[in-house]
Amino acid sequence: MLGWGPTKGDEKPRVVVLGTGWAGCRLLKDIDTKIYDVVCVSPRNHMVFTPLLASTCVGTLEFRSVAEPIGRIQPAISREPGSFFFLSNCTRADFQNHEVHCQTVTDGVDTLDPWNFRIAYDKLVIAAGAEASTFGIQGAKEHAIFLREVHHAQEIRRKLLLNLMLSDVPGVTDEEKHRLLHCVVVGGGPTGVEFSGELSDFIMRDVRQRYAHVKDKIRVTLVEANEILSSFDDRLRTYAIKQLTKSGVHLVRGIVKDVQPQKIILSDGTDIPYGLLVWSTGVGPSPFVNSLDIPKAPGGRIGIDEWLRVPSVQDVFAIGDCSGFLESTGKPVLPALAQVAERQGKYLAKLLNRMGKAGGGHADAAKEIDFGTPFVYKHMGSMATVGRYKALVDLRKNKEGKGLSLAGFVSWFIWRSAYLTRVISWRNRFYVAINWLTTLVFGRDISRI
Amino acid sequence: MLGWGPTKGDEKPRVVVLGTGWAGCRLLKDIDTKIYDVVCVSPRNHMVFTPLLASTCVGTLEFRSVAEPIGRIQPAISREPGSFFFLSNCTRADFQNHEVHCQTVTDGVDTLDPWNFRIAYDKLVIAAGAEASTFGIQGAKEHAIFLREVHHAQEIRRKLLLNLMLSDVPGVTDEEKHRLLHCVVVGGGPTGVEFSGELSDFIMRDVRQRYAHVKDKIRVTLVEANEILSSFDDRLRTYAIKQLTKSGVHLVRGIVKDVQPQKIILSDGTDIPYGLLVWSTGVGPSPFVNSLDIPKAPGGRIGIDEWLRVPSVQDVFAIGDCSGFLESTGKPVLPALAQVAERQGKYLAKLLNRMGKAGGGHADAAKEIDFGTPFVYKHMGSMATVGRYKALVDLRKNKEGKGLSLAGFVSWFIWRSAYLTRVISWRNRFYVAINWLTTLVFGRDISRI
Repeated sequence: MLGWGPTKGDEKPRVVVLGTGWAGCRLLKDIDTKIYDVVCVSPRNHMVFTPLLASTCVGTLEFRSVAEPIGRIQPAISREPGSFFFLSNCTRADFQNHEVHCQTVTDGVDTLDPWNFRIAYDKLVIAAGAEASTFGIQGAKEHAIFLREVHHAQEIRRKLLLNLMLSDVPGVTDEEKHRLLHCVVVGGGPTGVEFSGELSDFIMRDVRQRYAHVKDKIRVTLVEANEILSSFDDRLRTYAIKQLTKSGVHLVRGIVKDVQPQKIILSDGTDIPYGLLVWSTGVGPSPFVNSLDIPKAPGGRIGIDEWLRVPSVQDVFAIGDCSGFLESTGKPVLPALAQVAERQGKYLAKLLNRMGKAGGGHADAAKEIDFGTPFVYKHMGSMATVGRYKALVDLRKNKEGKGLSLAGFVSWFIWRSAYLTRVISWRNRFYVAINWLTTLVFGRDISRI
Repeated sequence: MLGWGPTKGDEKPRVVVLGTGWAGCRLLKDIDTKIYDVVCVSPRNHMVFTPLLASTCVGTLEFRSVAEPIGRIQPAISREPGSFFFLSNCTRADFQNHEVHCQTVTDGVDTLDPWNFRIAYDKLVIAAGAEASTFGIQGAKEHAIFLREVHHAQEIRRKLLLNLMLSDVPGVTDEEKHRLLHCVVVGGGPTGVEFSGELSDFIMRDVRQRYAHVKDKIRVTLVEANEILSSFDDRLRTYAIKQLTKSGVHLVRGIVKDVQPQKIILSDGTDIPYGLLVWSTGVGPSPFVNSLDIPKAPGGRIGIDEWLRVPSVQDVFAIGDCSGFLESTGKPVLPALAQVAERQGKYLAKLLNRMGKAGGGHADAAKEIDFGTPFVYKHMGSMATVGRYKALVDLRKNKEGKGLSLAGFVSWFIWRSAYLTRVISWRNRFYVAINWLTTLVFGRDISRI
């Protein structure tokens, strides 16, 4: 198989990063490219600013405003002779030979077959993320749309606008119209709640004006098996429930048993017909992670120690949603959150930079090097918007702890400001602000392109 | 078949408009919705601002900045009880019974079969446009991308970015790399030239910075059978050729004989391998226009008289690229230009409004009404950008006539200002200006979403 062999002693050591999510991108951003060559392997050439993805489904924000090209995060990958970005999936990791096997992504190009290649690494960082989890419920993968990538948001927006338009056309029965205009969200975590809030904003403001013919027929239902926003303070949850209900979101407590093309069936036998089904019930390990023959953490994630190393092999690290502390560390597996992933990426970049400076950058050269302070995660709090200029901000360190918790307009303002400053590039920060402004002034864009 | 029957005498007369291009949208904008109910039937719910479409392929402008939702052009279609937009194709026009048969567009929704319905009209305006013409060259439809709709521009952008990334991956031969990075444009009219200019801008500025590894391998070739920009002044054409060549666009005089998946073959036997093939050689009648059993104008267009009527039937008009003056009028068929289409839409809206006011709005009620001054087209001139802040402005009334013609930076400034003021909504005018600004400051966006 074609590819790149190991680096020589007089060359820069090569860090191979699998994935372009929060963890991988933060690492890419902070890694010292004077010490290392970086090679990033991922099926997408951009990072998604996930907390704002729900806003793009209804046009509050544009898709490109929440996507950062990797070349903007780490310019070395397009400039340095030894640093690259490969639009590919990693298919196999050969830890013994210090190399990964990859396959190119050639979707949409029918004249080109994907091909395989291999890349030797000095350090390997697995930041390949997790997969949307459907708990084995039949039909969910086929009929529901997840909300994890930009193309998911695009699909939701296209389908929502299509359903709005189709329900206007002569020949649709009233029952069918109600079904087409029923948006069902499964999963009451922050993503599900924020998407429901955005949808109800879209209905209250834009649908009433621009689809006046069907404005009374469109509905949003949020289905959750337990409590919505279970990680938040009780007071905030009560507030969220009140706000969502006020905005017309119908909350249903229930367990989905079966997903069919036009309806979901709950375990108590209730049928819920839908026109749009969005699924957001958490994540589980991807087939790539499952295929790795190394000790796993609870939940099937790649097992790591306190320094984010995969301890059974040399020079391999895992960060973000794909990884979890091994039981032997005595630490709990951290939640699959952007802030965990980003903090891990930041920590690991620092560790690798220090290691490289100390001469431990090349393969098998770091055995004698002191790894320093282990990674410690401090939760900074959680935020979620519930639509209509309202949000929740929970600054408690953990579920039982004490701390500030806020709900309402001020929180919404904090929510927007906080995310605006977190958006990575100035370009996108500018576009997010402009999008919010034009949504306020002109309403949301409804062209179906 | 389900649908809507004829309007009654005490109801507003119904104008059915087929199509949402320049002609249809200008008519929709100007029609008096106090007199008429309007029903618009089109497979897309937005108008494309075509002169700026080429700029979206490389990210100078965003896709949504050049798309205007119909509801923003004519708000009545979403507010008035008798006015509607139907996302559908017209499949048959039954002029005898004053009705059209339509089929819904349900692309992307596998749980819904398209259905048929019919709509009776008092006045029918056919503004269904033309189709990209390939002169029967084998393979062109399958392998080339046209540049007429937003989804074409999206496809070009995705393919261009994919090819740039794939050519970086280990395992690509040098020959294959050259092929992947060869962008071939067939057709040297304004669209082909503007697209080539945008591409060379993109290469000179953005590819050099962001894809430094392959910057010397990417090339643009423009293939034209005759002269490029044949409708422009000779001096301007010479200038355009000089500018394009300076920007690295390779001009080839030749006739395409065959299009294969990875190369085109010219009639002199030359092979031109390509990674991206964009086709823009003019337009011809669509299958819908071909299917209409009415007298045609030269070139197979729907034959119209000086008042834009289809004279053989009652209450039917045709405007834009789908129509042409009948030979019996003694007038030449007008070129397929946005300004012709828009002027016709404007004229016809005025005519229909006057007719409606005089009590001739309903079917068969306009027989006695004076149609007034016939439509006369005055050419306002042509513009085209050739990249690198340079453009051509030709204000001559016709090819042989006299008048101002300009080339260079001032023209480019006129080009941008003129189009900015022509963009229909304030929202998009604002976004076009902002896109131009951020392209200047930050460069073009390269995320492949």
